[in-house]
Amino acid sequence: MNAVDSVRLERIQRKMDEAGIDLLVVRLPEDVVYLTEYWPHHGVSVAVLARDGRPVLFLPEVEAEWADPSWADVEPFGWSMLKDPDLYDTYRSVLGKFAAQYGRATIGVEQSAEVVGPTYRSAEPIIPAAPWHAMIADVFADARLVDAVPFLAELRAIKTGYEVEKLRVAAEIAEIGLHHALENMTPGKTEAQIGALVEAKIRGEGPGYRGARLVRASAEVTAGLNSAKAVLLVPSTDYVTCEGDLVMIELGAVVDGYWSDLTYMGVLGEPTERQREVHNALLEAQLAAMAAVRPGALGSEPDRIARESLAKAGLDQYFPHITGHGIGLRYHEFVPMLMPGSRDVLEPGMYMSVEPGVYIPGFGGVRIEDNVLVGPDGPVPLSTPRKPW
Amino acid sequence: MNAVDSVRLERIQRKMDEAGIDLLVVRLPEDVVYLTEYWPHHGVSVAVLARDGRPVLFLPEVEAEWADPSWADVEPFGWSMLKDPDLYDTYRSVLGKFAAQYGRATIGVEQSAEVVGPTYRSAEPIIPAAPWHAMIADVFADARLVDAVPFLAELRAIKTGYEVEKLRVAAEIAEIGLHHALENMTPGKTEAQIGALVEAKIRGEGPGYRGARLVRASAEVTAGLNSAKAVLLVPSTDYVTCEGDLVMIELGAVVDGYWSDLTYMGVLGEPTERQREVHNALLEAQLAAMAAVRPGALGSEPDRIARESLAKAGLDQYFPHITGHGIGLRYHEFVPMLMPGSRDVLEPGMYMSVEPGVYIPGFGGVRIEDNVLVGPDGPVPLSTPRKPW
Repeated sequence: MNAVDSVRLERIQRKMDEAGIDLLVVRLPEDVVYLTEYWPHHGVSVAVLARDGRPVLFLPEVEAEWADPSWADVEPFGWSMLKDPDLYDTYRSVLGKFAAQYGRATIGVEQSAEVVGPTYRSAEPIIPAAPWHAMIADVFADARLVDAVPFLAELRAIKTGYEVEKLRVAAEIAEIGLHHALENMTPGKTEAQIGALVEAKIRGEGPGYRGARLVRASAEVTAGLNSAKAVLLVPSTDYVTCEGDLVMIELGAVVDGYWSDLTYMGVLGEPTERQREVHNALLEAQLAAMAAVRPGALGSEPDRIARESLAKAGLDQYFPHITGHGIGLRYHEFVPMLMPGSRDVLEPGMYMSVEPGVYIPGFGGVRIEDNVLVGPDGPVPLSTPRKPW
Repeated sequence: MNAVDSVRLERIQRKMDEAGIDLLVVRLPEDVVYLTEYWPHHGVSVAVLARDGRPVLFLPEVEAEWADPSWADVEPFGWSMLKDPDLYDTYRSVLGKFAAQYGRATIGVEQSAEVVGPTYRSAEPIIPAAPWHAMIADVFADARLVDAVPFLAELRAIKTGYEVEKLRVAAEIAEIGLHHALENMTPGKTEAQIGALVEAKIRGEGPGYRGARLVRASAEVTAGLNSAKAVLLVPSTDYVTCEGDLVMIELGAVVDGYWSDLTYMGVLGEPTERQREVHNALLEAQLAAMAAVRPGALGSEPDRIARESLAKAGLDQYFPHITGHGIGLRYHEFVPMLMPGSRDVLEPGMYMSVEPGVYIPGFGGVRIEDNVLVGPDGPVPLSTPRKPW
C-alpha cells in the first residue's frame, strides 16, 4: 500500500479541466501507472479518470491483489481462463458504463504514441491497435475523442515528491547492480557475462528493496573497441574481454514502473594514460552539463556546455548525439530534451538523463550518464556522480 | 550469415499470390524476422516484400552490421543522431519509392495486432500506431490496404526445417538456464533470486551458443503456496523459500527472434508423497497430451486427453486454462490452440506448448510445459520431456 499521491491526481484533474478533457481512458503502461500507481503485468489493464472522483482501474483477476485500492477503484475482470469471456466483450461492458454519462463528452485516448513503456511482462507487449480504437469509437460514438498522448507526456514531465522518491529507489537499485558488475568483472568474461552480472543482481535483490516489488533490468555491455560503436543501444556479444579493455555498461532499470537510465564506465585493470584523459575530459563535460540543469534554463543550455567542454579537450567531433532526455514512467520520455536548439524550459520537478559520450574509432567509447532532477535551486542528481580516474 | 530459408520465402510469395497481396509492408518484430531473418533491436525497422524478388530491409545505420545481406537488400537509414532527419521523413522517402509501382496495388499491412513480439530492446517497445498508419495511407493513397496480421500468423504457424533448427537452439539455451537454477537453488533463496539464476545463465552463456547472438530470458518463479496462484504469468517476489517448497519456473527465452516457452518444476529438498503424486499425475497427463500432437488431430484432442488423464487422478477441477498454444516468432502464437472446442487441424511443421497445470489452494501449483513440433509421424519435442519424481 502506498500513500496516495494526491498532488499528482489533483494536478491531472486541474489540467484536464483547463484542456477541456472530461474523461481519460488509457491503456499504455506509463499512463496506467500515472493514473493509478499500478504497473500492469500484461497489457490489458485500463485506467479511467474523470475530472472529479477517483481513478478506476480495470485489470485481470490474477493481477488484482497487486493493485492498491487506496489509489483507485479496482475492478477485476476474468481474462484468459477457460471460464472467461472475450476481452473485447469485457471492454465493451466495463467502458459501456461510462457511455451514458460521457456519451457526448470530450474523451482523451492514446492515439499517437509509438514509443511506449513496456508492461512488467516485457516479453510480449499487448498494445492498443485497431481493435481498441474501433471499440472506443463505437462505445463512445457521439463523444469527441482527442489524442491525450502529448497532454499526458507534458503532465508526466513534472515529478511530484512522491514520484521523486520512487525514482530514487529505482536509481539506487540500478547502482547496486552496476557496482556489483564493476567489482566482479574480470578479463576473460564476455560482454554478455558482465551484463548478466548487472541484471541478475538487480532482478535477484531488487524485489523487497525499500518497498520495491516489480523490478526489471536491461544491461548492454560493450567492451574494448566495441564500445566505440555504442552510440545507441548496442547489444552485448560473446566478445571475450581483455586486460586493458574499456567497459561501457548501459542500463535501463525499472521498479514498479519508475525508470532509471544510467551508463557506467569501467576498465579491466589499470587505465592507460589516454583512457584517463578521455574519461576525465568526458566526466568534466558531463558534470558541467549537469550543473547547468537549473530552473529556467533552456534544454539547449546543458547540451551547449557539454559540447564546449569537450571542444576544449579536442573531443567534440566524437559526440554525435543528444546530451539528455526526460525519464520517469519510461526509459526515455521526450520532455525535456537536452540537445541543440531545444526550447524546453527546465522547471523544478523535471527529471532527465545527462549523458554526453565520445566514440573514438580505434580507441573506444566513453559515455557517463546520470539522472538528475531540477530542484528549486539547481540540479539534484538521484544517481551518484562519478569520480575522475 | 545464415543460409537463406528459401522454402519459407517461396511459400510466403506463393501465398501472397493466392491471397492477391502484391506487397507486404511490415514493422512488427515477428514479421520483420519472418521476412528477413533480422530481429530488430529497436522497433523502427521496416521490411518490404513483393510477390517476386528479394525482401528489402530498412533499418537504422547502427543496426546495419547485424543484418544479413544474403537474406534481404539491406538499406540503412540515419536515425536518432543529431545529423539525422525525422524518422517519418525517412519512412516517406524510402517507402515512397514503392508508390510508383504499387500505387494501385493491394498492400498488406499490420492493423489488428495487439499481442506482439518485443524487439531485442524489450525495455521500450516502438510500435506502429496512428502516425504509421496515417503515413502509409498517405504514401499509398490509391492502393488497397488490407490487414495482413491473420495472413501472416497463419503462414508463420507452419515451420520450415530452417526454423525448426532455430527453435531447437532456443529450447536448448532455455534448458541450460533452467537446469542451472534447479541445481543451484537452495532453501533461503527468494523466488526472485532463483529466477535471476535462470536469466543470468541464459543472458551470459546464450550469445555464442550454436550461432546464437541476441538472447533474452524472462523467468518468473513462484514457490510454496504462491505457485497455486501461477495460472498466468505471476511475478517472482522476495518470498524466502523453505525446505519442502514446490518451485515453479515459467520461462520465456528468445534467441534471435525465435522463442521457447517452458515451465519446469522443482522441489527444495525431497518431495513429499503428495507432491510426488500430484507431479506424477500431471506429468502423465502432459505426456499423454503431447503424444496426441499428431498430423490431422484437432487442437481440442490433446486438451481432451490431458483433462481425462487428470480426471482419473481427481485433479481436473484444478486445471482452469488451455493446454497449449503456438510458439515461434512470439512467446505466444495463436495458431494452433490446444483447448476445448479448438478446430485447428494439426499439420506437420506446427509448433506448440503443451502445458497442463493444476493449482491447488493450500498445496501449490504444478505445471509442466514442453514445446513440441508436429512431425510427419507424430510429436517431436524440442525440449526434454520430464521424468516422474
